[in-house]
Amino acid sequence: MKTKEYISQNKEKFLNELFELLKIESVSADPKFKNEVDKASDFIVAKLKLLGLDNVEKIKTKGHPIVYGEKILNPNYKTILVYGHYDVQPADPYELWDTPPFHPQIKNNKIYARGSSDDKGQMYMHLKAYESLKETVRIDFNIKFLIEGEEECGSDNLENFVLNNKEKLKTDIIVISDTSIINNDTPSITVGLRGLTYLEVELTGPNRDLHSGTYGGAVDNPINVLCKMIASLKDDKGIIQIPNFYDDVKSFSKKEREAISKAPFNLLEFKNKIEINDVFGEEDFSTIERIGIRPTLDVNGIWGGYINEGAKTVLPSKAFAKISMRLVPNQKSKKITKLFINHMKKICPTTSKVQIKEHHGGEPVNVSTDTVAYKAAAAAFRKVWGKEPLPTFDGGSIPIVSLFKSELNVDSILMGFGLDEDAIHSPNESFGLYNFYKGIETISVFYRNLSGNVK
Amino acid sequence: MKTKEYISQNKEKFLNELFELLKIESVSADPKFKNEVDKASDFIVAKLKLLGLDNVEKIKTKGHPIVYGEKILNPNYKTILVYGHYDVQPADPYELWDTPPFHPQIKNNKIYARGSSDDKGQMYMHLKAYESLKETVRIDFNIKFLIEGEEECGSDNLENFVLNNKEKLKTDIIVISDTSIINNDTPSITVGLRGLTYLEVELTGPNRDLHSGTYGGAVDNPINVLCKMIASLKDDKGIIQIPNFYDDVKSFSKKEREAISKAPFNLLEFKNKIEINDVFGEEDFSTIERIGIRPTLDVNGIWGGYINEGAKTVLPSKAFAKISMRLVPNQKSKKITKLFINHMKKICPTTSKVQIKEHHGGEPVNVSTDTVAYKAAAAAFRKVWGKEPLPTFDGGSIPIVSLFKSELNVDSILMGFGLDEDAIHSPNESFGLYNFYKGIETISVFYRNLSGNVK
Repeated sequence: MKTKEYISQNKEKFLNELFELLKIESVSADPKFKNEVDKASDFIVAKLKLLGLDNVEKIKTKGHPIVYGEKILNPNYKTILVYGHYDVQPADPYELWDTPPFHPQIKNNKIYARGSSDDKGQMYMHLKAYESLKETVRIDFNIKFLIEGEEECGSDNLENFVLNNKEKLKTDIIVISDTSIINNDTPSITVGLRGLTYLEVELTGPNRDLHSGTYGGAVDNPINVLCKMIASLKDDKGIIQIPNFYDDVKSFSKKEREAISKAPFNLLEFKNKIEINDVFGEEDFSTIERIGIRPTLDVNGIWGGYINEGAKTVLPSKAFAKISMRLVPNQKSKKITKLFINHMKKICPTTSKVQIKEHHGGEPVNVSTDTVAYKAAAAAFRKVWGKEPLPTFDGGSIPIVSLFKSELNVDSILMGFGLDEDAIHSPNESFGLYNFYKGIETISVFYRNLSGNVK
Repeated sequence: MKTKEYISQNKEKFLNELFELLKIESVSADPKFKNEVDKASDFIVAKLKLLGLDNVEKIKTKGHPIVYGEKILNPNYKTILVYGHYDVQPADPYELWDTPPFHPQIKNNKIYARGSSDDKGQMYMHLKAYESLKETVRIDFNIKFLIEGEEECGSDNLENFVLNNKEKLKTDIIVISDTSIINNDTPSITVGLRGLTYLEVELTGPNRDLHSGTYGGAVDNPINVLCKMIASLKDDKGIIQIPNFYDDVKSFSKKEREAISKAPFNLLEFKNKIEINDVFGEEDFSTIERIGIRPTLDVNGIWGGYINEGAKTVLPSKAFAKISMRLVPNQKSKKITKLFINHMKKICPTTSKVQIKEHHGGEPVNVSTDTVAYKAAAAAFRKVWGKEPLPTFDGGSIPIVSLFKSELNVDSILMGFGLDEDAIHSPNESFGLYNFYKGIETISVFYRNLSGNVK
């Protein structure tokens, strides 16, 4: 039987297995789901064993377990490492889901459930692609599965595991399916991910909340001050005003920028979908470029003073903001963090005090299109989708990718099959059945494209 | 017996009565205290009856009751109307109180309890001053008590009551004890109160929360936009940038400003007490002037995006701010509200939408020092405190005062006995025993100064 035929005949079985996994409430960020996260790791362990893998392990960490399994058929074969995650984002707010987040259902040819796309659905395609090959062809590549349970809460323990297990994780190729394609008519391969620096600013004015009548006008208000500081971080052209912020930003040639703008994009549709009248971003760059190849500065949260119903005339003691910057090659998260902190301290007026706390960060990623792995992926898309995949820049971040590069010295191939409409991290997350099955087929061809080649 | 002697002999009785009132949890803003607010109104009704007043009524409103009582001894006598309130601010946060807010206690010669100063303690002095006169002299003035239960939540129903009962409330003098003196060595009479305009701004960017990776850099972030709008409302010299904002602001002559700056004020002490390194306010004005005779713009609250523990990379749909402006003569609350709304709409970029909701406002007040009432009050201070009281400008607002002026055509005399250290509206509110008893004495002299004078 041909591999494609096997996939076609096992559609229902594959889907039922995925549904089982989607029913497990493996929310890694919330301690009350700890047992469910554990259950999901057991599910992966069992499935890897069923695939006939060796050294299948549930590795305990300070947080949630890492699942590992491998099949080394011949040390001379190429080795493919599959990275993915079985944990999911919190499903809150539950009331905005049309169907319960952990009761997967099919509607309009899509699987609706938390994690259906990110990343249970996409990760599970790899297990099923391997199974499909195993049942239909002689496999002549080695495989390693590294499936973690903390991607949605910082991958802290995975970092340690990678640092301490470089030999075990030795590989020729790393493949990750945790990104999107442009649309089902336009396959694409992600070649850029942005890095991240995430900080929390605490601004203190007076030592206690004051009456805005008795003090207002004479004492600098920390909310007003924080607003002023934040406003000054970008000019009217959308250019970030932190000195040296752009020093290391990779510039793209005219030809490269032309290639980027080949991705189909309809500005009117983009604006209409999120109901805005105008986009805004760095002058002289297109929307695709602003998201893909330019750094950002966004306030992700702000609070201070009286925020309940009604009116309270308080001149507050403190104001807070969570601010993140998306970074692009060749910016370094630590360096940008330092520039930000120094700049905020410098612009804080003498009426106030500023304290800044660091949250997790991550480095930007740039994947070369000139590698064996990229070529194998592109060829797989050509064969299965009948089209040359476009290289695209995704604005998001997968911090572990840069660690794989720096510690294992291997580029990751970002071969995702999601769509923008999947609403990952939001209510009513979904994953198209077309994408699920087509993904399994594409991955099986990708594996085959890398096989048969002894070193 | 002399009045002063009566006060001295009844110190304990007066205090016990006040303690009874302070034990009632009459928080008007919170519906769960409705019964307690009602209980406090009954307490006032009972005490007014005990004073032998006529037409004592508990007047029902859509909110909390108004208590009224009067003694018209002779239509030719001068009539004094006492306004005060028996409701209090919420006591939250309870954990910051050293002793429970509704279990009054004496420490360091101060009464500690919510409402001890604002306004139960100060209002109750008037009842005890009247009692002290009644027991010791022949009273030859008329009195009206108007004690409400909604001062801390906007006085909405009192406004209606005043509009509909102008004849009943007809008076020669209105006296209010709900303000402070400079300190116990420096008595003062408040001659200025600021008005207020309080608004809530809702800024909308995209129609839903977006992933800051997938959209960041290309979509204007409503928090960044709101910060920019707020920052632009004041320049670096502390001058409010809303066009025509200062048009009606009363300017003071050099001589008047010199008089204002006679109030004892120590800038270092002011800064140290609230632990700030520098004050900030409108250029070319002193701290006392910035609080007393100049308008302000303060953000009282701000919120938007992710404000819980940890990091979430959201580009939010909305951002909110509560913004208030303190107004000075001759600014008009409605006009300033309109200027603010128009300006915010004008500066809102095309990427976003702004909506503005009005909370309650109030007009600024300027009390003439050239009235019979002011002179009677000043004489009372001279007699009891041995010092000429200084006219002072209080930065706060008592919106009903301007209504009394416009509807009853009577100036209010603002004869308060509180101190800055009373911490009204804050945890550990207190009122000095010295101020309580000295206040009763001063008020009794003030009443006497206005008596004996047939029209």
